[in-house]
Amino acid sequence: MIELRTPIQVKEAVKKVLALKKKEQSEFVLISDCDNRYLAEDILADHDVPPFTRSKVDGFAVRSIDTQDAAKEIPSNFSVIEEIGAGTVAKNHPQKGEAIRIMTGAQLPIGTDCVVMLEHVLQYKKKGSHYFQLEQELNPGMNVSYQGEDLQKGSSLIKKGRRITPGIMSLLATFGYNKVSVYKKPKIGIIATGTELLEVEQPLQPGKIRNSNSYMVASQIRKMGAEPILLGQLVDDLELSYQYILEQLKNIDYLITTGGVSVGDYDLLPEIYQKLGANVLFNKVQMRPGSVTTVAEWNGKALFGLSGNPSACYVGLEFFVRPLILESFSNPYPHLEKVQAILLKDELQTNVFTRFIRGFYHERDGKLFVQPIGLDQSHAISSLAEANSLIIVPANQTMKKNDIVEVLLLEGRGSEWPWR
Amino acid sequence: MIELRTPIQVKEAVKKVLALKKKEQSEFVLISDCDNRYLAEDILADHDVPPFTRSKVDGFAVRSIDTQDAAKEIPSNFSVIEEIGAGTVAKNHPQKGEAIRIMTGAQLPIGTDCVVMLEHVLQYKKKGSHYFQLEQELNPGMNVSYQGEDLQKGSSLIKKGRRITPGIMSLLATFGYNKVSVYKKPKIGIIATGTELLEVEQPLQPGKIRNSNSYMVASQIRKMGAEPILLGQLVDDLELSYQYILEQLKNIDYLITTGGVSVGDYDLLPEIYQKLGANVLFNKVQMRPGSVTTVAEWNGKALFGLSGNPSACYVGLEFFVRPLILESFSNPYPHLEKVQAILLKDELQTNVFTRFIRGFYHERDGKLFVQPIGLDQSHAISSLAEANSLIIVPANQTMKKNDIVEVLLLEGRGSEWPWR
Repeated sequence: MIELRTPIQVKEAVKKVLALKKKEQSEFVLISDCDNRYLAEDILADHDVPPFTRSKVDGFAVRSIDTQDAAKEIPSNFSVIEEIGAGTVAKNHPQKGEAIRIMTGAQLPIGTDCVVMLEHVLQYKKKGSHYFQLEQELNPGMNVSYQGEDLQKGSSLIKKGRRITPGIMSLLATFGYNKVSVYKKPKIGIIATGTELLEVEQPLQPGKIRNSNSYMVASQIRKMGAEPILLGQLVDDLELSYQYILEQLKNIDYLITTGGVSVGDYDLLPEIYQKLGANVLFNKVQMRPGSVTTVAEWNGKALFGLSGNPSACYVGLEFFVRPLILESFSNPYPHLEKVQAILLKDELQTNVFTRFIRGFYHERDGKLFVQPIGLDQSHAISSLAEANSLIIVPANQTMKKNDIVEVLLLEGRGSEWPWR
Repeated sequence: MIELRTPIQVKEAVKKVLALKKKEQSEFVLISDCDNRYLAEDILADHDVPPFTRSKVDGFAVRSIDTQDAAKEIPSNFSVIEEIGAGTVAKNHPQKGEAIRIMTGAQLPIGTDCVVMLEHVLQYKKKGSHYFQLEQELNPGMNVSYQGEDLQKGSSLIKKGRRITPGIMSLLATFGYNKVSVYKKPKIGIIATGTELLEVEQPLQPGKIRNSNSYMVASQIRKMGAEPILLGQLVDDLELSYQYILEQLKNIDYLITTGGVSVGDYDLLPEIYQKLGANVLFNKVQMRPGSVTTVAEWNGKALFGLSGNPSACYVGLEFFVRPLILESFSNPYPHLEKVQAILLKDELQTNVFTRFIRGFYHERDGKLFVQPIGLDQSHAISSLAEANSLIIVPANQTMKKNDIVEVLLLEGRGSEWPWR
């Protein structure tokens, strides 16, 4: 009646999941729709930066050779023959003693090789014409940025796999990426199991609770950059549930179920996996919460059987689903980021399984500290909302106040591989 | 010809902007659409947690009084009179020697007061009926969670003003928030100025560059939780530009312009502010980059005149626009988060203005370190994409390698007030 399960280490479980990685697929989206998507191609410079030799300041473009005798006692006089703003190109080529009024960012007129700042000259009018006096010698290149000095055309700026942030958006626009190649969002079906579950809009009934995991999981999935598809709840009937899952699997890339993976009599998932002929990669992991996490593979699709306990469900998703999604985006940091921090709590114990305790980490004086939350019952319910990290307490260890502990960040920038 | 401007401190400038805070407005959205929105009401528990007294384990619910003589040598025998799963309520009330098979999470049957784990009994059948032997005494409450022991109905769980994360989503679903009251997204118009600007889809032309700021700003605005509205570019004509801005101001809450705020001859914004009769709060700030940042007020609407330089534009938005948006969401941490870190670079200098240098911070052995990026020209162009922080170099100071410096985090969780 009671099935025996062999628990495996977290790192082994993650490796088994990552072996299910799917072929990456990309699509083009408009630049205005690409926030937070993952680049499916490197960003290349489509032109030199600066694209042309230009002025760094508001001032006058001149030939440096004409300034070589200028000094406070004997200023040189220049005639202003044209004015150009940014975006316009000078029509004239200044000769000896001639200057062109130039704005910041405008292309340096042919013949000139330096710019004197507006504030550093004395302007005057004579017979309706515009002149200035210069009291200093200028070197060639002064206040000038040369074409390509920052970056040459064709250079690779950002590697594919990066999430598109405002800073990356700036580069995409600069280099003309009106349409951006990004990875397609995997479609991830979410099914809740448990006859005790009500939908969020239903009033409470005796013995029942509302389905909160589906909404939490959908929110996590969106944050990971994939597309959640809420597929409701399983009915308490093996054949109907099997048929429903079989049908849904046609339209999704991965399936997440919450609940129904324990060894209780009413837990359907193990039987459904068997009926599907799915290959169960593992059904017990040496971790708390989430020890009953199950992952199976069916026709190349990952089936994640997460615990119905909200904390266990949350953790299972971050440990196992996140890296599979992010690796399919070529992201080099698919796992939760791991840091070290000083523990602010007397004692955290564990047994043969590694514990992952919800925590709040923060910086003080350049050091990181972490405080467990949700250990007492009164905070258990809101601890998932307050936590920004998971404190790792390795198997068979006790962590004491002021110990250095390892912490996984829920909002961090990810890591290559946090597991020992 | 050259206007004199009085630079003010960053903290004074931020205070002036925050005085423009608008009245908050909320709206209801479906729970499936509320990711990353800001709560406009506290989340209250609409029921006790647990909502009913329930079993923590898979097993058998019994009366503890019936177990008081059970021991290894003289086990007590129980008759299983009913089976209930999670979500179902027992029809029977066990009497002496009777038990009900119960699943994890199911409501404790009336009359019983404890649950024995499935693994701790010896089950057997007799004449088609179901029995078990119990070899231990159970205390009242064993393996039971009492109604309301975690949380009482009506308690406030999460305060308004918080951004909705997956953990908060779990609470919203648990407590029946099918529709969630969130703050409305302010509509923020974005206009680029500069005759040198091409749109992203245009091929490069002599003397011109593409408009990258509008896309970067829009991406930052979306990340801050507001709605960017791209309003194109100003033409190089005061009257037409004035009319266009006047018309657009009817439909937006704030206006952001990029470029056109310097003292160059072609910079339109100061004249447009004057023509509008806008109240200029400041037009020079003691910071680099972004010293020419201008903020004006017109009919209660903030007009942000940001620099056309991408780094200055980015910083101006994070320092001045971000807190105005987040305060309108009642968020208690509207400013960039500030931490301390160890500087990994020989020397950072400044003059009379405080410098904010793009940096990359990271943790090692529980301490935070920060490395400036983009100081050399070859990285200048991609430094906005690579930076995750801004290193603060206060006016008239020099920071050396291994100094503790203050760092503003671009992806942090925000702060109440980072300015000295």
